[in-house]
Amino acid sequence: MTNSSATPIIETDAVIVGAGPVGLFQVFELGLLGMRADVVDALPHVGGQCAELYADKPIYDVPGVPMCSGLELIERLQQQIRPFAPALHLGQEVTALQPLPDGRYQVESTAGTRWLARTVFIAAGVGAFQPKRLRLDGAEALEGGQIHHQLDGLDATGRRVLVLGGEAPAVDAAVQLAETGLAAEVTLVHRKDAFKAPADLLARLQALRDAGRVRVAVGQPVALRLAGDRLQGLDILDADAQTQALAADLLLVRLGLSPRLGAIADWGLALERKLVTVDTARFETSLPGVYAVGDINHYPGKRKLLVSGFHEATLAAFAAAERVFPGQTIHLQYTTTSPKLHERLGVTPPAAD
Amino acid sequence: MTNSSATPIIETDAVIVGAGPVGLFQVFELGLLGMRADVVDALPHVGGQCAELYADKPIYDVPGVPMCSGLELIERLQQQIRPFAPALHLGQEVTALQPLPDGRYQVESTAGTRWLARTVFIAAGVGAFQPKRLRLDGAEALEGGQIHHQLDGLDATGRRVLVLGGEAPAVDAAVQLAETGLAAEVTLVHRKDAFKAPADLLARLQALRDAGRVRVAVGQPVALRLAGDRLQGLDILDADAQTQALAADLLLVRLGLSPRLGAIADWGLALERKLVTVDTARFETSLPGVYAVGDINHYPGKRKLLVSGFHEATLAAFAAAERVFPGQTIHLQYTTTSPKLHERLGVTPPAAD
Repeated sequence: MTNSSATPIIETDAVIVGAGPVGLFQVFELGLLGMRADVVDALPHVGGQCAELYADKPIYDVPGVPMCSGLELIERLQQQIRPFAPALHLGQEVTALQPLPDGRYQVESTAGTRWLARTVFIAAGVGAFQPKRLRLDGAEALEGGQIHHQLDGLDATGRRVLVLGGEAPAVDAAVQLAETGLAAEVTLVHRKDAFKAPADLLARLQALRDAGRVRVAVGQPVALRLAGDRLQGLDILDADAQTQALAADLLLVRLGLSPRLGAIADWGLALERKLVTVDTARFETSLPGVYAVGDINHYPGKRKLLVSGFHEATLAAFAAAERVFPGQTIHLQYTTTSPKLHERLGVTPPAAD
Repeated sequence: MTNSSATPIIETDAVIVGAGPVGLFQVFELGLLGMRADVVDALPHVGGQCAELYADKPIYDVPGVPMCSGLELIERLQQQIRPFAPALHLGQEVTALQPLPDGRYQVESTAGTRWLARTVFIAAGVGAFQPKRLRLDGAEALEGGQIHHQLDGLDATGRRVLVLGGEAPAVDAAVQLAETGLAAEVTLVHRKDAFKAPADLLARLQALRDAGRVRVAVGQPVALRLAGDRLQGLDILDADAQTQALAADLLLVRLGLSPRLGAIADWGLALERKLVTVDTARFETSLPGVYAVGDINHYPGKRKLLVSGFHEATLAAFAAAERVFPGQTIHLQYTTTSPKLHERLGVTPPAAD
């Protein structure tokens, strides 16, 4: 963590952990009730699973939306929450959650951002998406040195690079590295000589292979070749159980993303099989003022569906309003008829007949 | 009720009482799980409150739909449930609900329709919409004779007609009656000489008034003038507390619609302030296999919002599936990925990358 004492602390009504569809809709429901939200997500963009796993896949069961892709749903939700302009804090994970004597929580992230939050909403879905790591002896110590997960900021000049993976993120990285021409060698390592990626990307890969600018090595990574603390290469095991040694200066591990509950697991919340236990009236966790909504929560009857996450976010917002506006009665108002909600939404609906 | 024994009984997985947005989405969730539904509504069209009260009014809080009118939402839901082609039974109200020894329910409607239903879903919103009655001594006995609520089927030939009401339904009826020219006299009766209706309709009314073809009488109806069991006129009280006697052969009462829980109140369900008590895991009422969803139900934390009704319909469908398919485990499948759901939806999504 960076030296957080240098960063000014952000006071907010709500920190929402997770910028997936339910986290985004949480912004909307809080906004309708007059609360401002800060949204934190481990990914560098909003959308969560909808962006990561279902970006171009059709979703049929959002009520009133007969069909839309994951990305379209996220775009619709971003449009819907625009009046409430949430502060987005992307590419960072929440770490500490500290209850304060005044009932608020101090929240911190891996980027050193700190919040003083009246309420916290865990909308973390299946967890924070993290690149899948290479599980070989010595790999962990090389992370950030000779083993990387992102192409951004990687200096491959004059290096022999092994790109590990068989899907679009790996193919794309190998193609980009080869096309820039800075690396000494680019080798794509996968357990079989078949790649899952869009046709145009596969065509570019094939052209680079034909030109000898990308090699493909087929086999399972089984061991790092190390000289002291320096990586020299990777041993892979091929289909005939033969070990092949690949020389390497850099490994770019593109094996996909895997969700991880992360620090939330250490916050002292009541959990049931890695899910956060909540009640069905307020969707509040065992910590007062901390709510859990969407796929990460559990209660009797729970189904991991968008439609349920949206409902949970709605009732949790009403519960939070009681905390943020103590002593006030929180009345249900309708977006169709309430002038106050129209003002918050920034809309001027047609006058009644 | 008509002679129901002549009508063949309809066997169905589910009778849904109410064709509002939640009743329609109930069809979808049941359909995804392989159950067929019959939908009953007192109104002659689908849409419930969305069609009756919010037809052209904007709704902003349906998740993923930044703005749509009530009618647009209903159109979207009708499109979404099209694959499941529910049987619609409109313009009729459910009356009897009779548990049968085999666990099913016999349901009947005012039109004499009868169902043998494995499950029943009460999605009746604020109740069945009924025309507001004229609350004057002797009025009830004249209903269907000299007092009517609908223009359809009304024979006004040579009659002196009083149309009661100040909004579009009353103005429209008076204008239509006068334009057809069959009635001897058409008088619009309202407490003030100001009417709420679309501008073009008001212009037609003004033209008819200018031509002496519609009169307006200003005052509150206070008593029917009767000779024996014949209606002869209506006394109204004007703003100066003067009583005015209006001669009449027919009264067309167009005072708007008012919701009524109706027969559901007599089904022996646990109620709390005219709302049906349910649990939050199954949204089941005190009668097994009878569920209540949307504005008509009550549970801790309940908010009368569309987003909650959609969630309730979803969990209630899973609960119903356990009853309709006994002994089977009901797995959650995703519309994005499940070939079985794609088949039920009649869609062929693009192949995975």
